[in-house]
Amino acid sequence: MIHVGIVGGTGYTGVELLRLLAQHPEVKITTITSRSEAGMAVADLFTSLRGHIDLRFSDPANSRLDECDLVFFATPNGIAMQQAEELIQAGVKIIDLSADFRIKDVAVWEKWYGMHHACPDLVAEAVYGLPEINRAEVKRARLVANPGCYPTAVQLGFLPLVEAELIDIDHLTADVKSGVSGAGRKAEVHTLLAEAADNFKAYGVQGHRHLPEIRQGLSNVAKKPVGLTFVPHLVPMIRGIHATLYARLTRKRKVDLQALYETRYADESFVDVLPSGSHPETRSVRGSNMCRIAVHRPQGSDTIVILSVTDNLVKGAAGQAIQNMNLMFNMPETLGISQIPLLP
Amino acid sequence: MIHVGIVGGTGYTGVELLRLLAQHPEVKITTITSRSEAGMAVADLFTSLRGHIDLRFSDPANSRLDECDLVFFATPNGIAMQQAEELIQAGVKIIDLSADFRIKDVAVWEKWYGMHHACPDLVAEAVYGLPEINRAEVKRARLVANPGCYPTAVQLGFLPLVEAELIDIDHLTADVKSGVSGAGRKAEVHTLLAEAADNFKAYGVQGHRHLPEIRQGLSNVAKKPVGLTFVPHLVPMIRGIHATLYARLTRKRKVDLQALYETRYADESFVDVLPSGSHPETRSVRGSNMCRIAVHRPQGSDTIVILSVTDNLVKGAAGQAIQNMNLMFNMPETLGISQIPLLP
Amino acid sequence: MIHVGIVGGTGYTGVELLRLLAQHPEVKITTITSRSEAGMAVADLFTSLRGHIDLRFSDPANSRLDECDLVFFATPNGIAMQQAEELIQAGVKIIDLSADFRIKDVAVWEKWYGMHHACPDLVAEAVYGLPEINRAEVKRARLVANPGCYPTAVQLGFLPLVEAELIDIDHLTADVKSGVSGAGRKAEVHTLLAEAADNFKAYGVQGHRHLPEIRQGLSNVAKKPVGLTFVPHLVPMIRGIHATLYARLTRKRKVDLQALYETRYADESFVDVLPSGSHPETRSVRGSNMCRIAVHRPQGSDTIVILSVTDNLVKGAAGQAIQNMNLMFNMPETLGISQIPLLP
Amino acid sequence: MIHVGIVGGTGYTGVELLRLLAQHPEVKITTITSRSEAGMAVADLFTSLRGHIDLRFSDPANSRLDECDLVFFATPNGIAMQQAEELIQAGVKIIDLSADFRIKDVAVWEKWYGMHHACPDLVAEAVYGLPEINRAEVKRARLVANPGCYPTAVQLGFLPLVEAELIDIDHLTADVKSGVSGAGRKAEVHTLLAEAADNFKAYGVQGHRHLPEIRQGLSNVAKKPVGLTFVPHLVPMIRGIHATLYARLTRKRKVDLQALYETRYADESFVDVLPSGSHPETRSVRGSNMCRIAVHRPQGSDTIVILSVTDNLVKGAAGQAIQNMNLMFNMPETLGISQIPLLP
Repeated sequence: MIHVGIVGGTGYTGVELLRLLAQHPEVKITTITSRSEAGMAVADLFTSLRGHIDLRFSDPANSRLDECDLVFFATPNGIAMQQAEELIQAGVKIIDLSADFRIKDVAVWEKWYGMHHACPDLVAEAVYGLPEINRAEVKRARLVANPGCYPTAVQLGFLPLVEAELIDIDHLTADVKSGVSGAGRKAEVHTLLAEAADNFKAYGVQGHRHLPEIRQGLSNVAKKPVGLTFVPHLVPMIRGIHATLYARLTRKRKVDLQALYETRYADESFVDVLPSGSHPETRSVRGSNMCRIAVHRPQGSDTIVILSVTDNLVKGAAGQAIQNMNLMFNMPETLGISQIPLLP
Repeated sequence: MIHVGIVGGTGYTGVELLRLLAQHPEVKITTITSRSEAGMAVADLFTSLRGHIDLRFSDPANSRLDECDLVFFATPNGIAMQQAEELIQAGVKIIDLSADFRIKDVAVWEKWYGMHHACPDLVAEAVYGLPEINRAEVKRARLVANPGCYPTAVQLGFLPLVEAELIDIDHLTADVKSGVSGAGRKAEVHTLLAEAADNFKAYGVQGHRHLPEIRQGLSNVAKKPVGLTFVPHLVPMIRGIHATLYARLTRKRKVDLQALYETRYADESFVDVLPSGSHPETRSVRGSNMCRIAVHRPQGSDTIVILSVTDNLVKGAAGQAIQNMNLMFNMPETLGISQIPLLP
Repeated sequence: MIHVGIVGGTGYTGVELLRLLAQHPEVKITTITSRSEAGMAVADLFTSLRGHIDLRFSDPANSRLDECDLVFFATPNGIAMQQAEELIQAGVKIIDLSADFRIKDVAVWEKWYGMHHACPDLVAEAVYGLPEINRAEVKRARLVANPGCYPTAVQLGFLPLVEAELIDIDHLTADVKSGVSGAGRKAEVHTLLAEAADNFKAYGVQGHRHLPEIRQGLSNVAKKPVGLTFVPHLVPMIRGIHATLYARLTRKRKVDLQALYETRYADESFVDVLPSGSHPETRSVRGSNMCRIAVHRPQGSDTIVILSVTDNLVKGAAGQAIQNMNLMFNMPETLGISQIPLLP
Repeated sequence: MIHVGIVGGTGYTGVELLRLLAQHPEVKITTITSRSEAGMAVADLFTSLRGHIDLRFSDPANSRLDECDLVFFATPNGIAMQQAEELIQAGVKIIDLSADFRIKDVAVWEKWYGMHHACPDLVAEAVYGLPEINRAEVKRARLVANPGCYPTAVQLGFLPLVEAELIDIDHLTADVKSGVSGAGRKAEVHTLLAEAADNFKAYGVQGHRHLPEIRQGLSNVAKKPVGLTFVPHLVPMIRGIHATLYARLTRKRKVDLQALYETRYADESFVDVLPSGSHPETRSVRGSNMCRIAVHRPQGSDTIVILSVTDNLVKGAAGQAIQNMNLMFNMPETLGISQIPLLP
């Protein structure tokens, strides 16, 4: 039984971690901290957890996180980097769901995140927790940087093509769409139902923090820099990411893309390559850790279109974090995260 | 391991049964029939079930339902009553999620459902499967009539008051609201997203088929006929029922309503009485078999307001059916149906 | 041409006033104030107004509201009561869309609104701007208290029954449902799309500020106090109010309710009594100043069910304010507010 | 006063035409036909039109369409081509909102629409009714082929770049998203609220009928064939199209894209180029005939991103049809279609 702590459990990533961990057979949640809600019963904040989670939020100052085997940070950016060092020293493993340890180039990180990095040393050690790329490293990691929601869907979509060196990697396009929970459980006008419902818009076209993260990941695979146009959009739904990816074949020869994807992901429990001609729906992964992918080559042109869907709070956050936990503690990778999607 | 068959698995009740049964540790689904989709893989119709359900829909004519221990009917009204007799004779237990066996007075049933009842004899034997009222009978039943979605939420809401003989049962009011999945997976104009989204309306004010079902259930408890005004509404959401119930106290004396409800449901796994002053949300039970209830007496008047929420596809249909199955086969009542609600 | 000022135009009531006034043939908007957005072009905040509104928000301190013929207050409660006196003295007419002047009993107002009333003298003079009741008084008014959204739908629904003295007015029930825009354009967690979508809940069952307002209005008509149970609910939609109203006939004799309603509202431009058996939808009034009503007497019982729908931002706020303006300035009552609802 | 007939007024395009035409000062609707609803009052089908439209649907067989000045076809594909010849002969002008006359190459049309064209002669004469390209021709037209919803948003977005010969027209990408009303008012499972809400998916990646239409339009402008990857998506909202368009600059030199777009559309009433850096929202055009566009060149790369939004039922259908009507009958182009968008 792993003793787990959660720092910052009042957001959507936090409540999703709680939903999944509460049903995990090898986990005992011992501590969950929140500065703002200290003292409140978790199930009073999230009625859905009544009868399943019996803890109260504790003040970070008084929490014995150092007695945990593993601590999840489900905090805003800039928190984990201040506490990681001490926990690591105490022998606690860390999975950081924020962006603090995702970007290896600290200068790039500081530019995009607009703050000074408090712990650059651990950045080098941190393992980027996309198991489909870094499984072996995750197993050995003390500190895992859990990927962003968009980067997960986009990288899993492009990965087989980049690995196979089939496409023009200078000009990738990722047109991605996210449900509103991706913006978090913060009181803001633009994500009010009366603003965001019955509405659709792009945002951050001039630059989104997930751009350097995706570029880093794909460049590592390609072993040279990739060029990416990345346009995120807000969809009037709660959960779900849909990435529509465009890449151009560099050689006009015949390629069996379907076989390429099926082979690449044959042994992956959480990547499902749909039959040729499919259009994955975000609801087909709602509440589950699955990423479903379909590959198209419309009208036989040289442009490939990949469709990749995930639940942003599961494979895009809490579920993938638990997948990483399972790997780090040598448990079956799917343990506790094989829920069937909720449909309709 | 119970061998289970499902008749008519292409609707929302069917896919929800499949989601829950696929994860039930003591169930093996052996057969699922569909006239229209015979031959198709279930997971091709419902992508969410890929990797979890390996069956194909079979033609009802060629299906060996008589070899099952239990058959669920997730069919439109009028089907189960034609097949029940033969299965019962073959020793197969039945849980009918349609309305065929819910109403004891066959003449009343025929009036509201507009057809001749094919099997009135079994109506008398059938047990109305609301475990919170009929647990003992369900355990012994060969044929369970699974309650309707509205009747479940409304009866659980009124039950403690009726049992305690505190209210004027001649004038109950149930103002109920349902998500659109309650209308089923049928192609109809009025439940299109472009019609039903960003919209709210009542329907069936002149008479809804769940009215006689609720009246029968509450009258049995009251041991005399109850009078009920029942107004259903369509909410622009997928799942969820919210019943707002109004009753007048017959005696002005002091009553501890909160204690009444908490005591009545203290031993019930699937009824959660919220703290005084609460407003249950439908999402707090999304995907779960829970019914959450709050009791109010606004401004100390003699009118009691009860708020009762369920997921219409779970406690209002498939989940309650499995709860009944667990009872009929002497398994723990909560087995396989203790999922945590999906929130957000 | 009437010169109009708007105080506080950054909320939903404000933008709706702007949409309607910009198309009104007899209005020139001269000033619109906002403390927080002073200096910003209105059309930069609300892109929908580009090309239609050329003004900038001005600082309230520097705004010449006293040069207007009419000032609308689209402010939070507690603002209008501080500025009304001075404007009235300057000969400016006022329509207050907030609650400051709606309740005649200042003590009651202070209890429900939790503040000291800054201007009790004008409370007495203020005319409650429900034209279907107070048309003559509105025409002569200097200060109109524009009704709340729920009170408009509920009072118009009950009005004919109360006037005709047909029902038990000690036990009225109003089960009302509102779109989320009714909560205003404020950053709050509970009205985020990720919280409020695919969800339904009641709120304020213990007491909502619109309760005393409705009670006052219906009591005035009845000429004695009415008893009302009022339960508001939040619907996952943007606009629209649906009131489901319950009343019991005091006499069991035959009453032609349909004729009663049709006669009562025969001369009203903004109340549409639907044919017998109808179920009005909120979308049938989306963006319009219409209130649509249907009357039911289910199964011939003594309980009457009235269904009343409005757009909370139009007939429930800005549209009704302009209807009052038309009356106060002796213009045709429907001028500028006869838009056809947007459907779908 | 123009006498107007509508063939097939029971769909979303039909009800939107009625909403707009009922408020048009120079139009009298004399006839509206529907085979299925003949005899029914239009306002009984669409409650929103009560008090505004007094007509009944008439049987096409008995309708005197030949006495109209103009007939709109708001029919499924394949109807207008059978009736156009006779009406044109009778001196009636036609605006066809279906696809029958959009594609000049009849063989291409027959391939994509899967039927034999009944009237190829008129295809040549028909004017493609995108006023921003073909204004002069529309003014002289007897038969206007009203553009599809996606083609309108996409062509207006790409137009300035193609005209200026700045981009690689062999490799355009249009990632487009539509509200569900684009699928029409047909009873189908996949557009039910319970299927399409809280969900997002692509469809038709292998080929959508609007692809050849867009290619034809842009190729005409470019004076050579363009290559286009076109991926449509279904958004869980009622109205609105959002086109995210990608094109690569052929020359790396400095180009003032903002000025290019502003200049091109300076005289267009229904194309609004937003300030640099903007992200247009679909709701900013809800219910209006406006197309709003923003141009981006992210991180100074050679890839241009254009965002273009319309209301699919207005500028994408009924509004543009009326814009064409205004041109054909020498009226001000904006007459009757300058409504302010409904926001929120």
